[in-house]
Amino acid sequence: MHDLKWSEREKKIARRVFEAALHQELGEVMAEFKEKAARAEEPDDMWAVEGWLAQRRRDIDTRYDFRYSQLVIVFGRLLREGRITEQQLEGLGEDKLSYIGRIATL
Amino acid sequence: MHDLKWSEREKKIARRVFEAALHQELGEVMAEFKEKAARAEEPDDMWAVEGWLAQRRRDIDTRYDFRYSQLVIVFGRLLREGRITEQQLEGLGEDKLSYIGRIATL
Repeated sequence: MHDLKWSEREKKIARRVFEAALHQELGEVMAEFKEKAARAEEPDDMWAVEGWLAQRRRDIDTRYDFRYSQLVIVFGRLLREGRITEQQLEGLGEDKLSYIGRIATL
Repeated sequence: MHDLKWSEREKKIARRVFEAALHQELGEVMAEFKEKAARAEEPDDMWAVEGWLAQRRRDIDTRYDFRYSQLVIVFGRLLREGRITEQQLEGLGEDKLSYIGRIATL
């Protein structure tokens, strides 16, 4: 899986799908962050937002790893989470799609 | 300085002054937090708020240390910062006030 070769065309598709999913997820976190901040009434609510945000950042940093050695795992998870679709991945080689599909069903 | 004895009356005064300053400062942080969150436009703004908030929490944790061995230092700093007044400290013994006053002018 780590030895998959990505063509230039595949790299472009991968980058586009990756960035779109990340952008979407960051937008959701932003919206939730603003809502939580606006709702905070006590200092403890504020520290809870800080902890939640740090957790979300670590989670996103872990899940969005654009190394070609990690990308089929990344896309497999995103597919399982419903954050990307199989249609978006069209154009990737069967070797990648096969791994991605298997990881998505884990 | 660490051997100062605090009477029950002094402890009550200290607790009241301490809590009032902490409450005030937390309120300021809350207001600034909500303003920063509302103004955030990009994910980077959001992560900057997270970093700022973590820093404020550590700073407050360090500065508001209600151990009797630390209290004259705490009050000295708060006095220097203008967060408490000499009037609020009335009723504390001269031994404490002397230390607090010296630390306030450092």
